[in-house]
Amino acid sequence: MKLGSLKEGGRDGTLIVVSRDLTHAVRATGIAPTLQAALDDWHNAAPRLNALYDEVNAGTAEGRFALDLNALAAPLPRAYEFVDGSAYLPHVERVRKARGAEVPASFYTDPLMYQATSAGFLGPRDPVVVPSEDYGIDLEAEVLVVTDDVPMAVTPEQAAGHIQLVGLVNDVSLRGLIPAELAKGFGFLQSKPRSALSPVLVTPDELGDAWQDSKLHLPMRTWINGQWFGEAECGVDMQFNFAQLVAHAAKTRPLTAGTLVGSGTIANQDTAKGASCLAEQRTVETLRDGQPSTPFLKYEDTVRIEITDAAGQSIFGAIEQVIAPLKR
Amino acid sequence: MKLGSLKEGGRDGTLIVVSRDLTHAVRATGIAPTLQAALDDWHNAAPRLNALYDEVNAGTAEGRFALDLNALAAPLPRAYEFVDGSAYLPHVERVRKARGAEVPASFYTDPLMYQATSAGFLGPRDPVVVPSEDYGIDLEAEVLVVTDDVPMAVTPEQAAGHIQLVGLVNDVSLRGLIPAELAKGFGFLQSKPRSALSPVLVTPDELGDAWQDSKLHLPMRTWINGQWFGEAECGVDMQFNFAQLVAHAAKTRPLTAGTLVGSGTIANQDTAKGASCLAEQRTVETLRDGQPSTPFLKYEDTVRIEITDAAGQSIFGAIEQVIAPLKR
Repeated sequence: MKLGSLKEGGRDGTLIVVSRDLTHAVRATGIAPTLQAALDDWHNAAPRLNALYDEVNAGTAEGRFALDLNALAAPLPRAYEFVDGSAYLPHVERVRKARGAEVPASFYTDPLMYQATSAGFLGPRDPVVVPSEDYGIDLEAEVLVVTDDVPMAVTPEQAAGHIQLVGLVNDVSLRGLIPAELAKGFGFLQSKPRSALSPVLVTPDELGDAWQDSKLHLPMRTWINGQWFGEAECGVDMQFNFAQLVAHAAKTRPLTAGTLVGSGTIANQDTAKGASCLAEQRTVETLRDGQPSTPFLKYEDTVRIEITDAAGQSIFGAIEQVIAPLKR
Repeated sequence: MKLGSLKEGGRDGTLIVVSRDLTHAVRATGIAPTLQAALDDWHNAAPRLNALYDEVNAGTAEGRFALDLNALAAPLPRAYEFVDGSAYLPHVERVRKARGAEVPASFYTDPLMYQATSAGFLGPRDPVVVPSEDYGIDLEAEVLVVTDDVPMAVTPEQAAGHIQLVGLVNDVSLRGLIPAELAKGFGFLQSKPRSALSPVLVTPDELGDAWQDSKLHLPMRTWINGQWFGEAECGVDMQFNFAQLVAHAAKTRPLTAGTLVGSGTIANQDTAKGASCLAEQRTVETLRDGQPSTPFLKYEDTVRIEITDAAGQSIFGAIEQVIAPLKR
């Protein structure tokens, strides 16, 4: 099934079940008022939401309405935990090379992951508001999963069963702030502001054969200002699958229902596939030409992030955002 | 006023207003079901909660009951954002010295802060469950503040007005996991598991003269296994006050109502005041004796963290925890 949230009903929005073709939806408030509430009681809520999904697809659901993806909040407008991996080592290798840093050998056996902000997720069509263009504004197109309650110290095999939803995230990064912040030694804070989620999150069964080994085997399509930017294969060069990433996050803590675990920027060894963030594109240019030629994002620039199925149908809906100044 | 949460009513507990002397309380469910709900609507909820606080203190509140601090959840059993500063530079200086790292000059003008987990806070008497004693289990006694909604890019002067509650946190740290995790470059994740909050959070007005310049001017009292461990002055050697810390966190993002901002481990230049974490005590020993003599925490060890007012009355209630193994 496919789940989203309307921008109504409060800070957590209103849960809707969305048709497979993303054209229609129905409020699920008879089952759970919000997606967080559904995740808090997932084993009861999921079968009822699935039944409603069948009705939405059949056109029989009471209260079914035509859906405007532009009106959606993030499926989880705020969440309790977001941890973001860097599972695609070609990205890590290139970005580290660009800043003259080494990739430690352990990165190939131990996932790299950081604690990200979860307090507010931008809706899929919300502007990315940044106080200064000089911050080096970048997109990062990623896949993420949402878990139910995960006990502390689960194995990857156990973790796989806790992956309940899959979606897309634009992990907005402020490249100009990263070197100084990472040099302080405690990771990202100001350099990783709010991210945007795809219009809907979907259950793994919705992905059919494209979901295997806790990985999504489809290309991540990105555009900047309407121009093709990349179509890196999510199922290729992913060093750690989502089950491993969830287990890594849960090594010393339980994960609360509604925890988001990100893949890191999708990147392949094959540079013909393009990039999923500007930092990488600029690194490819630097390695090739001695200097980067693609600028970071400026106000009024647009980004588009989408994954389609084999038939060309959008699975999660597209993230479509404009970069915007802060109104003071 | 003083606010806490009972372990009843769901994952977010049930909001209670607690008497100044911490002996009695009343459920505030007629005003807001949970502390998060109160913070979401703070300007409406706070005056009503304050009125109920007067009744609790006067003994006239309907439904007033004798309070068992052992039965409390964290005031915010889960929250959307926790960012933790390192405002006490004596701690930063000593801990960095212990691992052979330099303190950059910028640390004296730019706050060091990391994105911490907020998905679950331990109750004040909950055990600290750690899968292995070999992880180097440590306490960190800190002060924290809770904000209402803070706009992006506020000044410290503006940020001061968004500090609505003050409390204590035991920022549990796994020292054995920190070096390898920080060496990866993306900050803490496994090495900073769930933290515990004090039984109650209090409004700044409750602190009287002890709250000045967005700092708490009282000693942080800590005990390990019943033995005095420290009484570092929270108002001394705090390089950045809470208004500056909140503004730092909000530079590129708004802060959602209910965001927790920590001070970092309380530490003074004066080592006669003791320590607020074992890493620092061990560093003092290493600098003095050539090697540390105080071990990290083992299973069944206890920690106690408390701040009392000039009359010796506990302000927030004590955090009292035992270290415990994971039951598998």
